[in-house]
Amino acid sequence: MTPEEFRQHGYAMIDLIADYRQNIEQRGVQPTTQPGEIKAALPASPPDTAEPFEQIMGDVEKLIMPGLLHWQHPSFFGFFPSNVELSSVLGDCLSTGLGVIGLSWQSSPALTEIEEVTTDWLRDMLGLGSSWSGVIQDSASTSTLVALISARERSSDYALMHNGLQNSGAPLIVYTSAHAHSSVNKAAILAGFGQNHIRTIATDAHNAMSPQALAQAIEQDLAAGNTPCVVIATTGTTAAMAIDPLDAIGDLTQRHGLWLHVDSAMAGAAMILPECRALWDGIEKADSLVLNPHKWLGAAFDCSVYFVRDPEHLIRIMTTNPSYLQSSADGQVRNYRDWRISLGSRFRALKLWFLIREQGVSGLQARLRRDLANARWLAEQIEATEHWTLVATPALQTLCIRHEPPGLAGQALDTHTRAWAEKLNQSGDAYVTPALLDERWMVRVSIGALGTERQHVQRLWARLQTLV
Amino acid sequence: MTPEEFRQHGYAMIDLIADYRQNIEQRGVQPTTQPGEIKAALPASPPDTAEPFEQIMGDVEKLIMPGLLHWQHPSFFGFFPSNVELSSVLGDCLSTGLGVIGLSWQSSPALTEIEEVTTDWLRDMLGLGSSWSGVIQDSASTSTLVALISARERSSDYALMHNGLQNSGAPLIVYTSAHAHSSVNKAAILAGFGQNHIRTIATDAHNAMSPQALAQAIEQDLAAGNTPCVVIATTGTTAAMAIDPLDAIGDLTQRHGLWLHVDSAMAGAAMILPECRALWDGIEKADSLVLNPHKWLGAAFDCSVYFVRDPEHLIRIMTTNPSYLQSSADGQVRNYRDWRISLGSRFRALKLWFLIREQGVSGLQARLRRDLANARWLAEQIEATEHWTLVATPALQTLCIRHEPPGLAGQALDTHTRAWAEKLNQSGDAYVTPALLDERWMVRVSIGALGTERQHVQRLWARLQTLV
Repeated sequence: MTPEEFRQHGYAMIDLIADYRQNIEQRGVQPTTQPGEIKAALPASPPDTAEPFEQIMGDVEKLIMPGLLHWQHPSFFGFFPSNVELSSVLGDCLSTGLGVIGLSWQSSPALTEIEEVTTDWLRDMLGLGSSWSGVIQDSASTSTLVALISARERSSDYALMHNGLQNSGAPLIVYTSAHAHSSVNKAAILAGFGQNHIRTIATDAHNAMSPQALAQAIEQDLAAGNTPCVVIATTGTTAAMAIDPLDAIGDLTQRHGLWLHVDSAMAGAAMILPECRALWDGIEKADSLVLNPHKWLGAAFDCSVYFVRDPEHLIRIMTTNPSYLQSSADGQVRNYRDWRISLGSRFRALKLWFLIREQGVSGLQARLRRDLANARWLAEQIEATEHWTLVATPALQTLCIRHEPPGLAGQALDTHTRAWAEKLNQSGDAYVTPALLDERWMVRVSIGALGTERQHVQRLWARLQTLV
Repeated sequence: MTPEEFRQHGYAMIDLIADYRQNIEQRGVQPTTQPGEIKAALPASPPDTAEPFEQIMGDVEKLIMPGLLHWQHPSFFGFFPSNVELSSVLGDCLSTGLGVIGLSWQSSPALTEIEEVTTDWLRDMLGLGSSWSGVIQDSASTSTLVALISARERSSDYALMHNGLQNSGAPLIVYTSAHAHSSVNKAAILAGFGQNHIRTIATDAHNAMSPQALAQAIEQDLAAGNTPCVVIATTGTTAAMAIDPLDAIGDLTQRHGLWLHVDSAMAGAAMILPECRALWDGIEKADSLVLNPHKWLGAAFDCSVYFVRDPEHLIRIMTTNPSYLQSSADGQVRNYRDWRISLGSRFRALKLWFLIREQGVSGLQARLRRDLANARWLAEQIEATEHWTLVATPALQTLCIRHEPPGLAGQALDTHTRAWAEKLNQSGDAYVTPALLDERWMVRVSIGALGTERQHVQRLWARLQTLV
């Protein structure tokens, strides 16, 4: 494709995206596609000769659009807000168009330095101390894996340079709660700890990790001759947005010399609001934390920021320095390849840099406050309405709700819950995510898509009451 | 940013990218930025109020452009071609604009099924058997880490479900060559094997792994009571584009039950040319392989395709199935979260799908053949010219060259080599990557940027001769 053809097709692509966003409410939120339907509609073999671009664009509307869950829809209340502000789209588009790659500072200085500045900005926006340094990763799963490997190596005095985890003595132990994200368990087993060395700490009535239970588990492992290694605490768990008490947990990790990693992938964004920061009191006791600006904040996926206190430790684990990557600037600059698993990276900071500048901190704050107010409004309606229940105390913008008609309990209640959620999703009018809490199904209503205004929440509430 | 503002700024962004590509030869290839310069030019704090978009765009030309190494420049001969075809830019831009996320098939069916179809297409383009299945990862570093974890778990009968690598008995051993990419060693230590359990197998005169030396190393480990686990072979090493003999290596891994992972991140693209496939004879004996369409082939970064023979094994290791991700389609469809480390993903297949369709297989083949012919032409000039040497037999489009004036050897030759390479890079006329081979510096000339025609290679050759 020549630059002139790109100009023409590029305008059409911009129009397609603008129209998509402008008219998104005309679409049902949930796709109607059956498994295998899109695959069956595509040729089994790649085209030998070039296809006209118009033909490819034609397939976008015909094949792709009906096969999408519309995450940017104002009536999307599923999973978590995965907002992509349009300014961030342009920042990401620029990254792709420039086609530069981060391998070392020298392989594109702007890519490195804008990442450094933007993650510093974000740190300050969150009210974190200046001793934190950030790097952009693809996802919180990866950030958590990096944290667990970092913890493993601190506890083992860099065993990776010797025997690794093989024949390394007393087993290292990982502590987390049953409410932690599925990526925590996954990261622990991928990092080689083994399922037998993961302790699931009990939670309290608010689904938060119990520091007493944690203290007891650590003591038990010490008594058994094991080596307590790392605690993964969560600020805003996935199912119920529970808040683990970082201050008390941090006291324990400091006392026993454990690594404390905080998963605030979703809820961390709220910390740009000073009034929310009490939720993560104690964060300064952590060794690492992850926060995804590609969720509620509005940066295009993938933009997961991993903050660490001790970059030298991270670099010592992750560093590679083959001759073809050496440059005269080494030592004076950050080489982000030594802060992450992948060697190369896109110019990922652009989408966050564009977002923060185009919205301003106050603009981002205003939007998050709008969402919190909408969630409070809906929580009030539910509390005031017979047979509707909040099954978890709402900490932020996610509500866990249930309709509990008289006489329904246990399995029958589960069937009822899943039925009305499914009916809602199938209708395309709105999208919610059912999940288990205390082994019973409930429905998560996650408020905070970019376009979600009070009217959309009101409409959802009206719709919910007709379903049951 | 409203959709209407996006339309206006989006056109400007398309123009910026089109102009950048059209006029890229007016720029020097290498940035002139000093360490810290860009950082110092930016405010230390984020803006509280929104900035006009024009101001952000102004900073792109003023601050970012001078800080870039221009990977898309026709005189870029550094590292490896990291081509971003303009059709692929549009595919990626669509992914960002749609803002949908892959968590499970249900969270956007089209995202999953297009990834399935496109990786199948690529497999067929490479002449691989139909028993391979592909998944898009961010980078080869990640793919190789996944391969090493897969090998670890096969050798240990899924120890991750029990004690992991901790107290797991005889140590598992990793085999690779000194020419393997730096990510191989990194992946092995991140996966917990430990540096002591990585065997660096000797290479032959062509820098390829010696099957005899590999056989010997395996025997020695068996005799010592260790457990040989995995061989990482490379089709096209980074420094010298060496080709490990897969057929002989595959015989050994099959005989001893080792996992064989093939790193063909860069050179794998050449296998869309049937005349190149002899280079990876034996590939069907491998368990996994990685190939990055975001290199020579022209898909926007990140697009690293990891192919496996036994997806069920991969899924058993990577699977997570929390209640909030379950859907009625499970069992009938692929859930790519169980094929990789990260839970979420962008709609990454779009950029590859757009690329293959807009170029057609024959278009991609023609471009790669052009690059191979250009490399052959330059190799001929070098061979025919006094004091210039090819220090490695060119397998594909990367030449390893040295200017060896009479009387210069050892350190003095190194100084000479690095000086002319530095002079060339500093001039901005072209960009090459010096690297070590057999402990002596040489210069890698990696041919194959999208815009690189014969004239650019001719100009490079003329320039090189004026430098020394």
